[in-house]
Amino acid sequence: MSLTELLPITDLNDCCAPITREPMKADGAEKLARSLKALADPARLRLLSIVASHEDAEACVCDLTEPLGLSQPTVSHHLKVLVSAGYLNREKRGTWAYYSLAPHALETVSGLLGDL
Amino acid sequence: MSLTELLPITDLNDCCAPITREPMKADGAEKLARSLKALADPARLRLLSIVASHEDAEACVCDLTEPLGLSQPTVSHHLKVLVSAGYLNREKRGTWAYYSLAPHALETVSGLLGDL
Repeated sequence: MSLTELLPITDLNDCCAPITREPMKADGAEKLARSLKALADPARLRLLSIVASHEDAEACVCDLTEPLGLSQPTVSHHLKVLVSAGYLNREKRGTWAYYSLAPHALETVSGLLGDL
Repeated sequence: MSLTELLPITDLNDCCAPITREPMKADGAEKLARSLKALADPARLRLLSIVASHEDAEACVCDLTEPLGLSQPTVSHHLKVLVSAGYLNREKRGTWAYYSLAPHALETVSGLLGDL
């Protein structure tokens, strides 16, 4: 997906109620759909789960290319989508970039779907 | 999205652990991504929320066209996607088709994302 379509997940915090609670308005549905599109890709789901499973939920980009069997530019693109959508944070330290799970991002989406 | 890409959400039940618990395997990530794609559309999110908000979480197709301001064939397409993906059940009674929320479908996806 194009990076210009993305919006940070923090925009979801006040967008809408859980989808089963009341009919969604157009604006809230648009925002939630964008956040879901950023997640709805097998490579991005795997990257998120690899980062989350690492110690301290943080992984070096050098650990993220090999497990997926994808080229480094492809992995970089998916990581950019996840950062732009607010699921991952990125920090450059020395030679490498490190990616960590953004606190509450997945829980926000999950809560809007599930109202658990 | 094409209906041939869809798989019923019941296929997710044994596919995988919550994505933050362990690195996802390719097969599970592919299945979860397909289910998320079926959700990642503003019109489909609104249709789901309208059905869920109706009494008994069931709505006549005759109640679903007008609120979205979309043509009847477009709404029908989105409803087909939601039924094929397992989020809605469809029952024909007399003249009209009735759509109801499939039990546990949204909770399954929500649980895989959020591990709440």
